[in-house]
Amino acid sequence: MTKFCIQDNYPQQYCHCYGCGKENPEGLRIKSWWDGQQALARFTPRDEHIALPGYVYGGLIASIIDCHGIATASARAAAEKDSEKHRLKRYVTAALNVDFLKPTPLGIELEIRGMAQEFHRRKVKVKVEIFVENIITAQGVVIAVPMPDSMKR
Amino acid sequence: MTKFCIQDNYPQQYCHCYGCGKENPEGLRIKSWWDGQQALARFTPRDEHIALPGYVYGGLIASIIDCHGIATASARAAAEKDSEKHRLKRYVTAALNVDFLKPTPLGIELEIRGMAQEFHRRKVKVKVEIFVENIITAQGVVIAVPMPDSMKR
Repeated sequence: MTKFCIQDNYPQQYCHCYGCGKENPEGLRIKSWWDGQQALARFTPRDEHIALPGYVYGGLIASIIDCHGIATASARAAAEKDSEKHRLKRYVTAALNVDFLKPTPLGIELEIRGMAQEFHRRKVKVKVEIFVENIITAQGVVIAVPMPDSMKR
Repeated sequence: MTKFCIQDNYPQQYCHCYGCGKENPEGLRIKSWWDGQQALARFTPRDEHIALPGYVYGGLIASIIDCHGIATASARAAAEKDSEKHRLKRYVTAALNVDFLKPTPLGIELEIRGMAQEFHRRKVKVKVEIFVENIITAQGVVIAVPMPDSMKR
């Protein structure tokens, strides 16, 4: 299959996420690419995304894991149904767990990998790993659930 | 004891955190107040901190829990030693777990409460809760550890 950007294929009315929405000019604009099996993203934190001098802010790492995990769930759900990519379903985060394995140096591009470990109709468990120059510095688990009707617009 | 702002009492060289550093002009400037027993913060997400329309971005919630949890650990450690507040020790995040209990509406001030559940010399476990108009919308656990010598400047 052709690689595609997951967030660019969210429904237009749900593209405003601070972390990854293409319609949020103030946001981080994280883009996750689906290759049919897993999702890959690259992101270079900005200078202000500092924790302690020289290192990336943990909240940014958690944000990246959150958005990339949700994107992975959405693409994985579409793959399950063999849906066209332009019909991606929106997921939201029920739980987010992050392990900071070692300090993540600032100023270097991060590589983010996401893979669905479990797929159920009402819940997807996604593992996300963050690498700096091929060394893993953080990993997380996102429990993604389909956007409830109460959040629909 | 007198309430004090925890982040304003971090060592000057470690005040640049994107989430809560007073020396980060681009950051969120979260401020956590210690009352001797627990830490309290108030934060109103900005319009761009959107997830789906009408709701707060989960990555921001994770960021608030991270910074507030670390601040709680730092103040709790000082209380243990009966240290002066101007000698707060810096902690870093080993793990961050967030449960999103219900969608957090955007545009309303959040109240954030942090309390150390376990205190050990090398590890502090902090519970953080986020309330909107007295309703809890998210809760998290931060495992805080003293900043390692390798990160010192």
